[in-house]
Amino acid sequence: MTSHDTTRTTSPAYGVHSEVGTLRKVLVCAPGLAHRRLTPTNAGDLLFDDVMWVENAQRDHADFVNKLRGRGVDVVELHDLLAQTLAIPEAKTWLLDRKITPNEVGLGLVDDTRAFLETLDPAQLTEYLIGGLATVDLPEEFRSAHLGLARESLGGREYLMPPLPNTLYTRDTTCWLYGGLTLNPLYWPARHDETLLMKAIYTFHPDFAGSTVWWGDPERDWGQATFEGGDIMPVGKGVVLMGMSERTSRQAITQVAAALFRQGAAQHVIVAGMPKLRAAMHLDTVFTFADRDLVTLYPTIMDGVHTFSLRPSDKAPGFELTDEGSRPFVDVVAKALGLPELRVVETGGDVYASERQQWDSGNNAVALEPGVVFTYDRNTQTNTLLRKAGIEVITIVGAELGRGRGGGHCMTCPIVRDPVEF
Amino acid sequence: MTSHDTTRTTSPAYGVHSEVGTLRKVLVCAPGLAHRRLTPTNAGDLLFDDVMWVENAQRDHADFVNKLRGRGVDVVELHDLLAQTLAIPEAKTWLLDRKITPNEVGLGLVDDTRAFLETLDPAQLTEYLIGGLATVDLPEEFRSAHLGLARESLGGREYLMPPLPNTLYTRDTTCWLYGGLTLNPLYWPARHDETLLMKAIYTFHPDFAGSTVWWGDPERDWGQATFEGGDIMPVGKGVVLMGMSERTSRQAITQVAAALFRQGAAQHVIVAGMPKLRAAMHLDTVFTFADRDLVTLYPTIMDGVHTFSLRPSDKAPGFELTDEGSRPFVDVVAKALGLPELRVVETGGDVYASERQQWDSGNNAVALEPGVVFTYDRNTQTNTLLRKAGIEVITIVGAELGRGRGGGHCMTCPIVRDPVEF
Amino acid sequence: MTSHDTTRTTSPAYGVHSEVGTLRKVLVCAPGLAHRRLTPTNAGDLLFDDVMWVENAQRDHADFVNKLRGRGVDVVELHDLLAQTLAIPEAKTWLLDRKITPNEVGLGLVDDTRAFLETLDPAQLTEYLIGGLATVDLPEEFRSAHLGLARESLGGREYLMPPLPNTLYTRDTTCWLYGGLTLNPLYWPARHDETLLMKAIYTFHPDFAGSTVWWGDPERDWGQATFEGGDIMPVGKGVVLMGMSERTSRQAITQVAAALFRQGAAQHVIVAGMPKLRAAMHLDTVFTFADRDLVTLYPTIMDGVHTFSLRPSDKAPGFELTDEGSRPFVDVVAKALGLPELRVVETGGDVYASERQQWDSGNNAVALEPGVVFTYDRNTQTNTLLRKAGIEVITIVGAELGRGRGGGHCMTCPIVRDPVEF
Amino acid sequence: MTSHDTTRTTSPAYGVHSEVGTLRKVLVCAPGLAHRRLTPTNAGDLLFDDVMWVENAQRDHADFVNKLRGRGVDVVELHDLLAQTLAIPEAKTWLLDRKITPNEVGLGLVDDTRAFLETLDPAQLTEYLIGGLATVDLPEEFRSAHLGLARESLGGREYLMPPLPNTLYTRDTTCWLYGGLTLNPLYWPARHDETLLMKAIYTFHPDFAGSTVWWGDPERDWGQATFEGGDIMPVGKGVVLMGMSERTSRQAITQVAAALFRQGAAQHVIVAGMPKLRAAMHLDTVFTFADRDLVTLYPTIMDGVHTFSLRPSDKAPGFELTDEGSRPFVDVVAKALGLPELRVVETGGDVYASERQQWDSGNNAVALEPGVVFTYDRNTQTNTLLRKAGIEVITIVGAELGRGRGGGHCMTCPIVRDPVEF
Repeated sequence: MTSHDTTRTTSPAYGVHSEVGTLRKVLVCAPGLAHRRLTPTNAGDLLFDDVMWVENAQRDHADFVNKLRGRGVDVVELHDLLAQTLAIPEAKTWLLDRKITPNEVGLGLVDDTRAFLETLDPAQLTEYLIGGLATVDLPEEFRSAHLGLARESLGGREYLMPPLPNTLYTRDTTCWLYGGLTLNPLYWPARHDETLLMKAIYTFHPDFAGSTVWWGDPERDWGQATFEGGDIMPVGKGVVLMGMSERTSRQAITQVAAALFRQGAAQHVIVAGMPKLRAAMHLDTVFTFADRDLVTLYPTIMDGVHTFSLRPSDKAPGFELTDEGSRPFVDVVAKALGLPELRVVETGGDVYASERQQWDSGNNAVALEPGVVFTYDRNTQTNTLLRKAGIEVITIVGAELGRGRGGGHCMTCPIVRDPVEF
Repeated sequence: MTSHDTTRTTSPAYGVHSEVGTLRKVLVCAPGLAHRRLTPTNAGDLLFDDVMWVENAQRDHADFVNKLRGRGVDVVELHDLLAQTLAIPEAKTWLLDRKITPNEVGLGLVDDTRAFLETLDPAQLTEYLIGGLATVDLPEEFRSAHLGLARESLGGREYLMPPLPNTLYTRDTTCWLYGGLTLNPLYWPARHDETLLMKAIYTFHPDFAGSTVWWGDPERDWGQATFEGGDIMPVGKGVVLMGMSERTSRQAITQVAAALFRQGAAQHVIVAGMPKLRAAMHLDTVFTFADRDLVTLYPTIMDGVHTFSLRPSDKAPGFELTDEGSRPFVDVVAKALGLPELRVVETGGDVYASERQQWDSGNNAVALEPGVVFTYDRNTQTNTLLRKAGIEVITIVGAELGRGRGGGHCMTCPIVRDPVEF
Repeated sequence: MTSHDTTRTTSPAYGVHSEVGTLRKVLVCAPGLAHRRLTPTNAGDLLFDDVMWVENAQRDHADFVNKLRGRGVDVVELHDLLAQTLAIPEAKTWLLDRKITPNEVGLGLVDDTRAFLETLDPAQLTEYLIGGLATVDLPEEFRSAHLGLARESLGGREYLMPPLPNTLYTRDTTCWLYGGLTLNPLYWPARHDETLLMKAIYTFHPDFAGSTVWWGDPERDWGQATFEGGDIMPVGKGVVLMGMSERTSRQAITQVAAALFRQGAAQHVIVAGMPKLRAAMHLDTVFTFADRDLVTLYPTIMDGVHTFSLRPSDKAPGFELTDEGSRPFVDVVAKALGLPELRVVETGGDVYASERQQWDSGNNAVALEPGVVFTYDRNTQTNTLLRKAGIEVITIVGAELGRGRGGGHCMTCPIVRDPVEF
Repeated sequence: MTSHDTTRTTSPAYGVHSEVGTLRKVLVCAPGLAHRRLTPTNAGDLLFDDVMWVENAQRDHADFVNKLRGRGVDVVELHDLLAQTLAIPEAKTWLLDRKITPNEVGLGLVDDTRAFLETLDPAQLTEYLIGGLATVDLPEEFRSAHLGLARESLGGREYLMPPLPNTLYTRDTTCWLYGGLTLNPLYWPARHDETLLMKAIYTFHPDFAGSTVWWGDPERDWGQATFEGGDIMPVGKGVVLMGMSERTSRQAITQVAAALFRQGAAQHVIVAGMPKLRAAMHLDTVFTFADRDLVTLYPTIMDGVHTFSLRPSDKAPGFELTDEGSRPFVDVVAKALGLPELRVVETGGDVYASERQQWDSGNNAVALEPGVVFTYDRNTQTNTLLRKAGIEVITIVGAELGRGRGGGHCMTCPIVRDPVEF
């Protein structure tokens, strides 16, 4: 983090102005304790398909970070940021007041748990906040008879603080959209606390405090309005793409659109209504940008997208809705960007290979700059097609990282990214 | 409801002082529109195993209510109570302000939806509040372009108000425990709004306003602290049984115990730690009382219960916890009630039949008075064993009502029940 | 069976010449011991969605049989036929030689099991052959140490003879197609033995021995060639409809078509290629005849059917195949029958109700004669539409019988049915 | 295969006399076309949890083979053996006569499919026999109208020959038990054809023809008698361990035991009755030998094993059964081998890590010689414990190979292994 410290910028300069402009600063989160908690029994509840070899996942993630830094990107890591935040006494108090409550820890265990956590240094505390605190982690001197109920509890409730393995996918929790950000209410209860950690950082960390928040607050209940960054893309020219999926709802999309329009942050939201056949999927698992006018997509899903446009309106509710009917999503996007068309690289290989590669995050590219992307090594056919289209493809080892069903796009939350010319 | 109106009592007289004392007043909810929304596709999301023939379910439920009334019980019905509540203008405003929000209905649809609902009389409005409001229910004059997004939405989000078919199980949402009640935070998000409807009734309905609330408020977020009435039994002598299950957590049990002790409402909470093999089960699906000293239970599950006692303490957190170790749950309960032992009627039949009958709510008896219970007709072997033990068993037709995996105990929320002598 | 005995016909007169001509003789199978073996744990393995109340299922099935007999149909019942068959010593030997083998019963248990079964009268033996023989059913004098392994076995292997609850659906196991029948290889291993029982009857029972078998033999391994009567309809004029589904494969359809053509039994097989979205479904769960020119169907599925025709050819493999392309299935069927069109009654009600009624076997009508059908009582909306179309609808109580996801068509295997005029 | 050819031994010398004696000859099968057919949609039907990166799986498998050969093991590969077998005209005819039938390929497609396969050289033919033949693989000149039905078929029936990805686990299909082998009837229909390929080899390949077959024949139907090599271990001194699991039934175990005793091949079969909680598991996923007196095991499962012994008897059925009752499985095994006890290395790490490592085949070691085993690299904690116990652990890269839930023991079928001294 040393180089980061010397180049510390004030947050007003933060902003993401495209999907493919030069990436200058990005947030990631390394695998760790939370992933060592995953077992075949609990992985499903924690939204993972399989367990991973954590040491190798850490090695491959470090390699990804190293390649980003080697290309000049300022990479910040969630454990580091949170530890820096918790070094500030009022930040630590603020966060523990919200985590160590009777509703979460259980009455009778609040004082002991808080007392134990107060003994920890910021890095150790961070590890438990992200990795979870199991009853067995509590040292002898903080264990009372009240732990008995917790040990007999069912499922995740045996934890005093739940593990948050999906922090690996920093993309979802917050979104920088042009000059401000959203603090997202995530769909699955197992992920809600991720946004609270981010609020602590954006409230107290000197590099992030003072950022403009367009919408969202993890301390409020958003009901059906759930919003995940994997569905959201600020592509430039005031346009934002939003996948309407199981995880990102119309209740949230319309609120964020109205908030962006009202604050002058965007002029056009293009909604990709995802087909019902694979409801759980984020837009970025089937559609990402690799160059200013080139996308990679999985046609089996994208062919079923129903497209809508939202544009600002003086009348309530602050936007007007256009049903784009039978116009293909890529055409609506191209026109909004002032392009004659988008070049398309479909998932590669035969019917078997393309389904396999979409599953292995083959379309989940993240751009370093126009025409330069990171993808997983295993999707060799899609990578070859991208290269034949002139894209520079830098590969990440996906054998372990890919088991959570997310790729480079999911694992990165851009904080500063340049605009591109259209 | 006429007889009810003439016998209107003020709520301070309400209270449930046992599991088997004479039942004087009870809340039920008839099947209706919400159950006509159930399909093979969505039933799982709405927590039902199968669709039901709604007309016959209504017939069988009406028969149950008629038998209760025929034995002198004052039966109140949720649709009736809610309609009476909504006839009060401030109650209607209070509830619609909380239901028709951008988070739930979606921005752009709030005004039209509210305008339509304002045209309805209280009974019609009640039907949609419980039965759900689908986009197709909105009349032409209230339909705008904004409905397009809702029609393309995934899963339950195509609704403007979700259906609440689990209102059929009034037992879970609120619990009268001696002289006051709890407004329960339910485990599944699909059921959260049930408690909000009950809060409207307990806040505004003249028969219910002013009741003592020990704990709970559906307008707060309770996190891991979830609590369902199917796990809770005020058995008398200041004792409350609480099943610690997937749906009722230690985080809630300890809070409710402390609240009851602090307010002098109970002196002993006995926790049944349910075994992990059938995590989703309420205590009353495997254990209910049929007489002051007789219970019916499913030994396959009950043999695995781990028992704890909570008793008041002057010291924080307001209770002390005793691990009962290897003592059988029924022995702990018997001793707390001052009984030498509890007589036990196990689920009847061979290994196949007993598993079938537990599944068909064979142990889910609800008492009319000591030694008189309602159960489903289909569990003939368990019913015979109860009768041989001297219990009067009145049967309810369970062919349709039983498909949501709940029986007579689940479908009743006692409001006034006498104590029994021990 | 008395009246049956006096009207005993010789099998050469048997034959099914239409789907709606007057039904003269039919095979059914009453619920019984096999259904009392169903539990929530094993029901899925035995292909049932839920457990049933067996006594009531028996009552409702008896009522169905009574109504059939009241309308003059000669109803034969599988337990009766099998017991009559087993009264013939060589038949009993033949069947027990095939059932009580080391492969099925287990080495070390063959002799004791056989010895026990030899003590039984034909009716008792039949009950175990259909209902299954559990290790606990073996009397003390036939129990040896070898039972130990069986009691520790996993899943269905604790049985000495497996229960066959799907015998309730006599439709699937054998099909009379005009003047002969097929002995069907069923898809699920849990149903294979049903066909063996039928072979015993068709080999030894004096009413059935000597029948013409077009195709099939349960003592051979048919590999991918599986064939179930729920997909097969001899509609008249030498036409046979065959649903190509998960359970009825092209490998079987083409063999049966060739066998029928070669033996002059049919001139045209129309294949309904079922869409992949609900793969497990038989054709008769979404399409049945109610009159000579009227069908009831579930459009959500039938709109996705791809139709093929097979007609006799002198060249190998004995048929030619025509892809009917975009022609609707009902149009191809109408033309084959010489009708200008088929009248269609779709599953009734709104989007929720029609999905519910298809699930509840709403389209699974069985005709008594042209324009007179049996259906379940619960599908009130579809029944009303059929009645408005002039059909006489006789209802069966479906609360219990319907839980195996089959209706009147599934529960009947016509043996003699008249042709209709077209 | 050249070195193999020069060292060609006659099959009478083949035999596996222990689990840990020096391994001299072993059968493996490299990943290939069958694994490129796996997709997220069909993987479950083909018994795989996830798709794999086939190129890397091939690389890692080749490395495993190379390490085996580097230690002097004669490694034969299934594709090679099958191609050598198919080079023999009568072998090719024998196998194609059994694979290309109306039951499997479909009437109307037999001649074209056979004609195409006859054009292929043995290696190409082998690739399709193991990798499957999809309708799209058939060249234009062999495509007729009859393909239409196949293209519209559901699930695996669109194949003309199904893919056999589980050939990777050569352990299961045949077992050398001392001086002879079994040709196993596998539990899942998706694997049945694997044994047919092995029968072709053992019937026609000059290195394998003439081997003693104790039991089994893929051309017969074995009913409930299914048997998989992952459950079977010839540990020496005439003892054979057999896991009684979902896949290996008592119906097969008793037959094989009787066959071994009758032919003097073994004197004691020890049955491990696997607990019902993880029914699908082979014995070798929770218990393997690493040295003559050292095993690695997963206690969570092994603690629940119920042990039986079968020993030869003059009386029918040729064996006597002893229920070992509460005696631990490892103690029964130790005593049978004449050892005072077995040293035990449990799956390593805390409660999370041990469950993860069992899942990742951490206990699935295969021995090269006493005290030298192969395991996956990812189970670092179990590997460390083995090493601390004095075992030489050689690691295989498991990132891809492990996705089918099998390790080194599953991927090897020993053909020649020395005895060990006890």
